Amino acid sequence: MKHYTSIHDIDNIHAWIEEAKAIKANPLKNIDLGKNKTIGLLFFNSSLRTRLSTQKAALNLGMNPIVMNVSGDAWGIEFGDGTIMNGVTAEHIKEAAAVVSQYCDIIAVRAFPTLTDKAKDESEYVLRSFVKYASVPIVNMESATEHPLQGFTDAITISEYSKKTKPKVVLSWAPHVKALPHAVANSFTQAMQKMEVDLVITNPEGYDLNPDITGNTPIIHNQEEAFKDADFIYVKNWSSYSDYGKILNTDPNWMITKEKIGNAKFMHCLPVRRNLIVEDAVLDSDSSIVIQQANNRTYAAQLVLKKILETKEIR
Amino acid sequence: MKHYTSIHDIDNIHAWIEEAKAIKANPLKNIDLGKNKTIGLLFFNSSLRTRLSTQKAALNLGMNPIVMNVSGDAWGIEFGDGTIMNGVTAEHIKEAAAVVSQYCDIIAVRAFPTLTDKAKDESEYVLRSFVKYASVPIVNMESATEHPLQGFTDAITISEYSKKTKPKVVLSWAPHVKALPHAVANSFTQAMQKMEVDLVITNPEGYDLNPDITGNTPIIHNQEEAFKDADFIYVKNWSSYSDYGKILNTDPNWMITKEKIGNAKFMHCLPVRRNLIVEDAVLDSDSSIVIQQANNRTYAAQLVLKKILETKEIR
Amino acid sequence: MKHYTSIHDIDNIHAWIEEAKAIKANPLKNIDLGKNKTIGLLFFNSSLRTRLSTQKAALNLGMNPIVMNVSGDAWGIEFGDGTIMNGVTAEHIKEAAAVVSQYCDIIAVRAFPTLTDKAKDESEYVLRSFVKYASVPIVNMESATEHPLQGFTDAITISEYSKKTKPKVVLSWAPHVKALPHAVANSFTQAMQKMEVDLVITNPEGYDLNPDITGNTPIIHNQEEAFKDADFIYVKNWSSYSDYGKILNTDPNWMITKEKIGNAKFMHCLPVRRNLIVEDAVLDSDSSIVIQQANNRTYAAQLVLKKILETKEIR
Repeated sequence: MKHYTSIHDIDNIHAWIEEAKAIKANPLKNIDLGKNKTIGLLFFNSSLRTRLSTQKAALNLGMNPIVMNVSGDAWGIEFGDGTIMNGVTAEHIKEAAAVVSQYCDIIAVRAFPTLTDKAKDESEYVLRSFVKYASVPIVNMESATEHPLQGFTDAITISEYSKKTKPKVVLSWAPHVKALPHAVANSFTQAMQKMEVDLVITNPEGYDLNPDITGNTPIIHNQEEAFKDADFIYVKNWSSYSDYGKILNTDPNWMITKEKIGNAKFMHCLPVRRNLIVEDAVLDSDSSIVIQQANNRTYAAQLVLKKILETKEIR
Repeated sequence: MKHYTSIHDIDNIHAWIEEAKAIKANPLKNIDLGKNKTIGLLFFNSSLRTRLSTQKAALNLGMNPIVMNVSGDAWGIEFGDGTIMNGVTAEHIKEAAAVVSQYCDIIAVRAFPTLTDKAKDESEYVLRSFVKYASVPIVNMESATEHPLQGFTDAITISEYSKKTKPKVVLSWAPHVKALPHAVANSFTQAMQKMEVDLVITNPEGYDLNPDITGNTPIIHNQEEAFKDADFIYVKNWSSYSDYGKILNTDPNWMITKEKIGNAKFMHCLPVRRNLIVEDAVLDSDSSIVIQQANNRTYAAQLVLKKILETKEIR
Repeated sequence: MKHYTSIHDIDNIHAWIEEAKAIKANPLKNIDLGKNKTIGLLFFNSSLRTRLSTQKAALNLGMNPIVMNVSGDAWGIEFGDGTIMNGVTAEHIKEAAAVVSQYCDIIAVRAFPTLTDKAKDESEYVLRSFVKYASVPIVNMESATEHPLQGFTDAITISEYSKKTKPKVVLSWAPHVKALPHAVANSFTQAMQKMEVDLVITNPEGYDLNPDITGNTPIIHNQEEAFKDADFIYVKNWSSYSDYGKILNTDPNWMITKEKIGNAKFMHCLPVRRNLIVEDAVLDSDSSIVIQQANNRTYAAQLVLKKILETKEIR
């Protein structure tokens, strides 16, 4: 594997899940694999779990992580072609990506969408520019439209907690006060589409995700109906996709309650706003597996880094 | 030892001091103890000495330090119970502490007081929440009311420089332009109360520290009288405790001068404002042991981490 | 070698270049030299290449790098002698430098000029204060007037790409929208003056560099004439030195074009503003060796750190 930018980079999700579980059982087994190799973690946006778990994963492989907040530690990066750079950006991605490639064996990047310019966001210009101009493998730590480390983490977690051959998994929208990206919901959907699960998405009218991603997955606008007999309820807010980046609905009736979830396991990528997205009674109960889910972020990242390091073409 | 949050966590300060001196004489002796273990250093507030010395201590034990400025690198953390999180905080401490525990074997936290809400500060809600919701040991890198890594450092330093069985140690307030916390003064007082020293506190009227902490320690409002025959003069500004967080006095006569200190050793936790807290002539003379004191921060932290790592219950 | 603060600290640039090339051929040869030693990278200003390449160099020597943004992570540092510190600065360099020396075996510092106070900038008060008050070696990661890690990097790069006994090297000013420092141009000039090259500087009237640095090096105010038969064209903007820190000229005719450079190799320290300093056609062609130049930053820094570590007087 050269890059890991999408759930589509997973060739066989069941094999990957088994390998990730093996890593979890013995996380230091490959401590020599990344020895004297460096991973640069470049953050264009804030991070807690991704920042820590990716470092931990790299350390478990013996790598040296170097973390940088791009805007705060360096300066604005230009992505436009042919731009006369007489404004606020000080370095073009062509140089920045090529230069960081001189010092790091792998580059991991987080860059959120604008949520104002759909075409720009869908072009994935930040992530794609790194892939194009860097000379080393790129790992997506959440881009404009995808969060494949999270999506793979979620697949591992569902595999661990599933008691059925084909569990029912519901992805539910929940209300939020800020306009949020679609990346987590997209990658979760894509991961589940590769799994042996019965996937249903529920969200209010106007909040359907990108149909190119949801494909044949049923979308039900009635949350109660969607939740019926669910084994896993995966919750996430996102802003409207059709009325791009807008908040059309903040209906508190879409908040997840203990009553609603029944016997299902509650999942969320975190951070989660309590009593807005989900009530305390859910998060504080055994129905919630969000902490165990967060724990799997390390092993998802570690498998991805391991596969990249094992690829022969890497210097 | 599970956590290190207070001077009260030191069971035998004389034994600890001897052990810290042994570490100082041979700092790399336990380089394998923390191998492949990670310490997360979470800063809600600025830091120089604590940031560097705690990293150095961890490295001396073979640990991997991961440093995070919580607000700058991630987002606002919510500490309230039952809050409807529709404001500026994006993640609850219940999740944040539990999640960081998945990636770090020890969590060290710095979180200063509000200095406006005494009850809130004295509840130590940030530190206590980490202790409550994290599943790994917590180290206090200065909380609202205590700075026990500094207090233990000070005990080591006084032990090193003391030429008497029972030296006279004076903790003196000095003027400052900003309202400062009580943590350093509190932990110094608590550490000295465990030592074989003659402890006296001197400060202007209205600046007496929390009586639950000072206890039977004499408080003298006349600095000159307090300094008589002192062996160590430990200086620190703090805001009023009774008129909580207020600056009641900026009298330059309380500044420490060469003339005032006589043959005593001058100590301060740093950073220190020159010619406001203390005149140049003191800091630039052999009376000052502030740099040697700062050096001991490494060995104080290293002993604390060593004791935590040696505790069997740690994974 | 105790400190590396200037190109003048290079005793024999040809020997240094050969040694840097040997490191580049075998970067991990001295992985044990810096074992259990710590380098503190202190940034008063932004950085991308220097931040990453100096960390990489330290890691290649087995050192532990600790990175700190001084203002963001800690607080304002006071450099004045005798100052009554009742303003915004919270710690004096006397303490800060001495304290960091307790935790780090080497301190590397980046601190840009004011560009408003020539005397202050030329006093190099930040860098000189670290040299004066720290007890460990200091490495200059770009100071007010010098950037010797860059200058040495440039010398290595020219040596690698030179096909002649004495190549013609032109340092050319190019337009920019912000007032920039002279450090890169100064250190490049000083490095070339030690090399077997035919050095020419070209810039508009009013932009001559400090004559104490340029010395006998020819300065030509006609760029076309200067570029004739050039083997290397090194481009950099700087603000006026005589009319200190001012922007006197933004003439786009000084921008570097494909037509202008002919068969010369194009060099720049980066970050570079495209289509302001140099047109895309140059950077995107084989004439440009800016990425290879950036790569050499690691080996320049690694040789400097190696020489410091090998010096006996270091603890």
